Order: sequence, then structure tokens, then C-alpha cells
Amino acid sequence: MNPIDVDVAIIGAGTAGLTARRQAEANGATVALIDPGPYGTTCARVGCMPSKLLIAAAEAAHRARHAALFGVDTTVSIDGRRVMQRVQAERDRFAGFVQRAIEELRTRGVLIPGRARFLDDHRLEVDRVDGAPPLVVRAGSVVIATGSRPFVPPPYRGLSRDVLLTTDEIFELPDLPDSLLVVGAGVIGMELGQAMARLGVRTTILSLGGRIAFIDSEPVNAEAIRIFRQELDLHPHHELHEVEEVDGGVSVRFTDFDGRTRTERYARVLMGAGRVPNWEGLGLENTRLTLDDRGRPEVNPYTHQVEDSHIFVAGDVAGHRPLLHEAADEGRLAGLNAARYPHVLAEPRKTPLSIMFTDPQVAVVGDRWPDLSCADHRVGVVDYGDQGRARVMGENRGMVRIAGAAGTGQLIAAQMIGPRVEHTAHLLAWAIQGRMLVSEALDRPFYHPVIEEGIRTALRDLQSKLHLSYKPEHPCEEWGAGT
Amino acid sequence: MNPIDVDVAIIGAGTAGLTARRQAEANGATVALIDPGPYGTTCARVGCMPSKLLIAAAEAAHRARHAALFGVDTTVSIDGRRVMQRVQAERDRFAGFVQRAIEELRTRGVLIPGRARFLDDHRLEVDRVDGAPPLVVRAGSVVIATGSRPFVPPPYRGLSRDVLLTTDEIFELPDLPDSLLVVGAGVIGMELGQAMARLGVRTTILSLGGRIAFIDSEPVNAEAIRIFRQELDLHPHHELHEVEEVDGGVSVRFTDFDGRTRTERYARVLMGAGRVPNWEGLGLENTRLTLDDRGRPEVNPYTHQVEDSHIFVAGDVAGHRPLLHEAADEGRLAGLNAARYPHVLAEPRKTPLSIMFTDPQVAVVGDRWPDLSCADHRVGVVDYGDQGRARVMGENRGMVRIAGAAGTGQLIAAQMIGPRVEHTAHLLAWAIQGRMLVSEALDRPFYHPVIEEGIRTALRDLQSKLHLSYKPEHPCEEWGAGT
Repeated sequence: MNPIDVDVAIIGAGTAGLTARRQAEANGATVALIDPGPYGTTCARVGCMPSKLLIAAAEAAHRARHAALFGVDTTVSIDGRRVMQRVQAERDRFAGFVQRAIEELRTRGVLIPGRARFLDDHRLEVDRVDGAPPLVVRAGSVVIATGSRPFVPPPYRGLSRDVLLTTDEIFELPDLPDSLLVVGAGVIGMELGQAMARLGVRTTILSLGGRIAFIDSEPVNAEAIRIFRQELDLHPHHELHEVEEVDGGVSVRFTDFDGRTRTERYARVLMGAGRVPNWEGLGLENTRLTLDDRGRPEVNPYTHQVEDSHIFVAGDVAGHRPLLHEAADEGRLAGLNAARYPHVLAEPRKTPLSIMFTDPQVAVVGDRWPDLSCADHRVGVVDYGDQGRARVMGENRGMVRIAGAAGTGQLIAAQMIGPRVEHTAHLLAWAIQGRMLVSEALDRPFYHPVIEEGIRTALRDLQSKLHLSYKPEHPCEEWGAGT
Repeated sequence: MNPIDVDVAIIGAGTAGLTARRQAEANGATVALIDPGPYGTTCARVGCMPSKLLIAAAEAAHRARHAALFGVDTTVSIDGRRVMQRVQAERDRFAGFVQRAIEELRTRGVLIPGRARFLDDHRLEVDRVDGAPPLVVRAGSVVIATGSRPFVPPPYRGLSRDVLLTTDEIFELPDLPDSLLVVGAGVIGMELGQAMARLGVRTTILSLGGRIAFIDSEPVNAEAIRIFRQELDLHPHHELHEVEEVDGGVSVRFTDFDGRTRTERYARVLMGAGRVPNWEGLGLENTRLTLDDRGRPEVNPYTHQVEDSHIFVAGDVAGHRPLLHEAADEGRLAGLNAARYPHVLAEPRKTPLSIMFTDPQVAVVGDRWPDLSCADHRVGVVDYGDQGRARVMGENRGMVRIAGAAGTGQLIAAQMIGPRVEHTAHLLAWAIQGRMLVSEALDRPFYHPVIEEGIRTALRDLQSKLHLSYKPEHPCEEWGAGT
């Protein structure tokens, strides 16, 4: 019983590890799934789900506050404890589904609660969380799926746990904080910063480099900064002078995006400055893998294999596409390849899709914008400021830019900020993955009046910039008023 | 100057007539566009746009009222005059775009304000609205695009204009009515009935036949009735005993959906019982066309031509697909064919798509459900009652059914009620038009957590019912918690 022999050892029972487990077993492998807990996946416990729950509350407050536009008068008061209670109760429910699956795996003896460390290429020592003596697991192949953790930039590392929050802590608060400094304008910083501000928390968002999240089209980034700064104390770039923990919070001195030097106090500081992969403590130095100067191996992004070895890496720790749906795909393929090693397959990756659930939402689809310089292309544009349905709903702001290849009009990429972008981004991601031409997209149905008609406007613009059609004199006569 | 000679005469300056005009001129034809007004299209003046504006106000009120779920406490009061003012102001703005295009056409002499009537196959007499003597227009070919008007069922025809409202009048009201009887549970009746109810108007919706709008899948219809009846005094079937105009409104005695006989008073009655095509007064009996017993010719739904004649029919009057985006397509092709007659083309129709903008929304995509009996198929289902993102937003209700062909899994049709269906219906309509297989759809990206993941659940269900894949034991382990 000690050592335990299995075909596949999987380190980490998050999204990637769980799909790897299923796929490895489905391919006939015996599996040990090693994780010290807490269980329930980053997404369900501290990521996608609780953040969307907080956003749902913020959106309810925001919409109620702005109903007067429609002739609906309201008063709004926010009960921070109830806001957090719903976030926690629903979050626990979502994480509970995963935890029940984990419990079954523990009962079956597949899950070993503990921390794994390579002793050599095929042997892992498991430091068990229940205090039992360490186990040794001998595995034909190994999947590393250890995930990631919040990054804390150096100036904030001295802050105590009374003040410093990461996504591991913020959803545990019993009530909304009095005030909040958000460090970083990435997805986490922007989503939670805007949600907190809309829930009445005095919030400042400080970032470096002048970019909002993953946007890399200059005009879309500029539009995002313009829109979000109308509502938020947002500084996409700033100079930090001093961070000091004070009674009941933190005092921060910084020069803001407008060049003003300010000293502000906040009750709490939330880290939204990205996540770092969990490579530490794995004992990779005891294997034959070649490691870079940070102690990390190089992972093939198509097969998830390290070199030609029996070791595979999937999910956030690999750092290729740290998103739930990609982690699930990577885990599945890593599990398959681990079970069938040395017979290893690649799999076509899905069209890249990233969404930020702010209001307005932001998305990028397909190739990164700088990569477009390699292809002869044009960009079709729509300004949602004057789009019919968006105006009807009072959400008429934003911009969508769609790139298509010269000569054919094949759709390549899109960068988007605007209403309901999570949906139109799916439409475009599906079209791009299907290698759809702009002419084919324009032959598809667009109902009226819908947000999708704004996408059509951008496609028409793209088509005429590619000289694949003429521009009509009166779009409203051609396509209906308010498209 | 009298008669006027043109290549193409177009009767009706609505959506179909305007696109026909543009296409005919683009193909070198001289055009007379004949319409007595009011100008601005059915859609912009009395259809899609003002209804969506009223719905936007209703949704603002509804969401504000139900924010407590999220920990946001509100009071809500509705200012009916301001509600209607926004509807009218924005509606006028949308219709104004069309009216300006019309004005240019009038200046250019293309638009002749008046009513047209065939004198013979090629000559139209125009009864001018400005009191000038009638004109005769001699045309090589003719496009009939006279649109439709609200249908008033016989029991309500005796009501005075003080009580009876159609979509021609309801958006002109200076204030919300005190109470409203809606006749018909089609798109107009359901959209406006629910909007009025949510704006605090005591509203009853009475219909015949037990169906909600265009739904023809039994389980989806049953789910729609169940959901809407939780909120609305909705009777998909009823027996009408008496309608009587009384002081300040109407008194109606009916046996409702639950078999109770009730007598109710309402300040106003809104017709939502469909629209009838405007065939009257065209003098078609003076042409060589064969007319049915209602005096209507048979129109080819692909070329829009009547028999092999020089007369074409487009838009609502044709009755094939009375929707803005279809009317625009039909007008374009009818205009092209009228200009190039006798050289006449068909054009592939778009995948059928109908959307009802209630909450939850309803849509049907692709083939009608009864037509599916001609194809060996299976139906994949998702219940939105337990869908992750829908639950996060507190909109977790509804059902989507997707049909796919046996053997290949090619997607055929969908019937849907649920959150954000207007967007997922576009995704499925595009997929169906592209002849996508269920396996291809499942290879496309689905972000997390999104409403689209519910569609994936239905696709997975379809795939396993078609025996094109196995069903996983733990969906949450495979695809993430709360998908």
C-alpha cells in the first residue's frame, strides 16, 4: 500500500485536475488525484462565480438608481450584509457541487488529501493534511494542475491581513468595506472595483501601464478609459509614493492619472494585480526536466507535455490561457495524453475569447491585436453611442472593432466594449472559429431591434473598407431605423 | 408630365418599399414611390421601436422592484407621463431618420404622396393627398409593398375610439391607462400586456387557442404559459360572453382559463390579435392577375413575383414573414427583380428567426416544430431553472429545446423561453444557417459563467440522445460548477 502504484498521478483537484482525472480514467488508467484542499475550484470558490454574484448585486443597485431616465422614480439603499450573504450562499452552493464530486473521489480512494513533491521522475511524496505519515505515489505519468494564486506587488506586501484582501478573502467579508483601494485594472480589479463602487463603497482603482485588462487595440482601450473614468476613480497609470498601514486601514500617497498628487485613506486594499502560477514546492529539480531560471519547465501549448516526458501541465499553472473553459480543455487533453503516454495527441485550440463582466462589458476575440500586423487586414468599426437598441435601453456607449482579411473578408479578430458584449463576443468567436467571411456573416439573420445590429454595422463597415461592397447613402432606409 | 412614365412603380414607402426603391435605382431603373403617408415605417412609428421603448421602462420598474433578492432595497414609483414622453420622443427620433430620407425622395420627385390603384396592367392612378388632380403613372413593372394594419376581431368592432386602442394609438397616449384589456397573446399582446402590467396598469390578456405567440413546441408553450401566468392575468384561452362600452371604459364578461366566469371593467382595450395585409383598394381586378376569393394574387416566396408577371409583392402585405429584417430583404429582391424584369432571380432566404421581447424572452429558430415530423431527429433540452449564470442574475427560469438530425447531428431548429434568448437565438440561427453539426457547436468556445452554457447543456443532451457521445456522470466536474 505504500508506495501506491498508479498509471497517472494528478497534482491538483481544480478544474484542470478534475477533467484530467475523468479523461484518464475514461481511457482505462488508474489515477491518484492529490490536493491538500480547500476543494471546490478557483472558479467556484474565489473566481468567476462569487465575482459575478457581487456584480449582479451591483448591477441591481445601479439600474435601480438610473431608472428615472425611463420615467421610473426610485430610492435605493444597500444592505451590505445581505449583499454578502447572497454572494456567500450562492457561492457555497456552486462550490458544493464540486465538493460532492470530490467527496466521491475520496470515498473511492482516488483523492489523496495532501501536498505532492517529486522525489524523482516517477515517484511523488505526499505530505498528508490529516497528519498521517507521508505516502509515496509511483506513477507512470503525471499531470501538474496546481493552479495559481493572487499576486501581491512589493509595495503592499507589508500590509497586515486586517487590511490586505485578495480574492481569497474579499468574498468572506461579512459586510461591504467602508472604502476600498483596488490595485490593478485587470479583469479582477475592474470587475470588483466597479461592483464595489456601485454598491456605495468609496473605491479607487490604481494601475500601471495605462491599459484596461486584456484590451490591446488602442482606440478600444482609450474608449474604455473614457467610459470607466466617467463613473470610477480609476487611474490606469499612477505613481505610487507611499503605502502605510494606519489605524483602521491604509494611507496611500500617489500621483494620479491627471497628475495630481493625492493622499487617501482606505479601509481595505484589494489585490487585482494578476495571479501567479503555483510552481513552488513541486520538487521539479529532482526530475530530469530542464527548468528555466525561475525553476519552471517549458510546456507544449498543444499537447500540454513537457519536452518528450511523461509529465503534463494543464490549467492556470501552465499560464497559456488562465480561464475556466480553457483549463477544462487542457485538463481533458492532459489526462488523455497522460493515460496514453507515450502516444500523445494535440487538439485544435478554441478561438481565444476573453470577457470582462464590467458595465459596459469588454471582450477580445481571436488573434491578439498586435499580431494582426502579420496579416493584410482592415478594421470595421461601430460606435454604440448611436445604436438603436442600445439607445432604447439607455446603454448606448461603447465601440466594437472587427478585423477581416484583405481579399476574402475572413473574420480574424474583434475588440469590444459595449452593451451585452458577452453575447456578441460569442457570436463573433463562433464565426471566427468557423472561418466565416464577412459576406457570410452579413447573410445571417439580424433581428430588429437588437444589439447584434451594431455588429452588423461594423461588418458592413469592414466589408466596404475591404472594397467588397459599396456603402449605402441612407443606412436607415436600407436596414431599418435604429439599427 | 401626366401620365408619368417610369421603369418601376413602388406602392408603399415602408421598409420593403424603401429597400425596393434603392435596389431598383441602383440597377438603373427610374422609380415612382407612391404612398399617402404617414411616413416613417410601421416598425419605427408603431411597431418594434416604440414597443421596445415601453418594454425598457417596464423592465427598469420590474428590476428596481425585485432588487431585494440581491440585498438592494428600493422604493419604486412610476410617472406614466414621463414614461410615455420618452417613448414618444425616442420613437420620433427613430422615425425621423426615415422621414428625412423620404423628404429627400420627395424633393427629387421620386415620392408621390397619394394612393395608387391599378387602371390596367401597367397604369396606376394616384389619388393625391394634397388635393391636386389625380396622376397616372405608367410603369414597366410594379412592386406592391402596402404593409399591414391591426386586426380588430368582430366582438370589439363596435367599441368607440375612446376605448379601443391599436398599436396605431397606444403609443400616442399622454399617460398610462388606468387599466387595460389586451386581446390576443401574440407578440404584440404579450409584449405590451406584460409591459403595461409591470408599469402598474391593471391588465388582463385574453386569447384563443391556448398558444403563446409563435411557439409551436408543446413543452415550450406549456412552460411559457406557466411562467407568464405567475405574473400576469393571462388567459391563453377564454370564452367571451359580452363586451359592452360603459362610462369610462368597457365591461367584459368572460370565462377564463381556469373556468371561472368573470365580469371586469377596463379603461381601454388594446388589440393584439394580429395584423391584416393591406390588399384593399389596389384595383388588382383591373389587371390580368389571377386572384383568389379574397381578391389576392399568389406570390412566389423566393422571387416575390406574382405568376410570371411584372408585378412583385414584398413585406408585410405578402404575409410570408412579416418582420422588419425579412421585409427589408424582400423589398431589396423585389426592387432588383422589378428593375431587371423579365430577368428574375430567387435568393436564399435567411434562417427563420422570431423573437418576442417579453421577460423571459421567447424565440423560435429554423424550421417550424410540426415540420420536424418530416425529418428523423432528436431534441436536446435545457431547463434554465438551474443554470448557473441565470441563477446568479436571478433570472433562472425557462427552457430551450434544440432539434438535430439523426446520423449527423446537423442543427435544425430551436424553440426557446428564458433569459437573454434574443442573443442565444442569434447564435443558434447563425449556426443553423451555416448547417453546423452539434459536434461543431460543442467545439466552439463557451465562456464561463454565461447564459450560453445553458445552450451547451442542451447541445450535449442532443448529442447524447443522438448517440454521438456518452453522458458524463458529473457535468460540473467536466464543464465547471454552475454551467
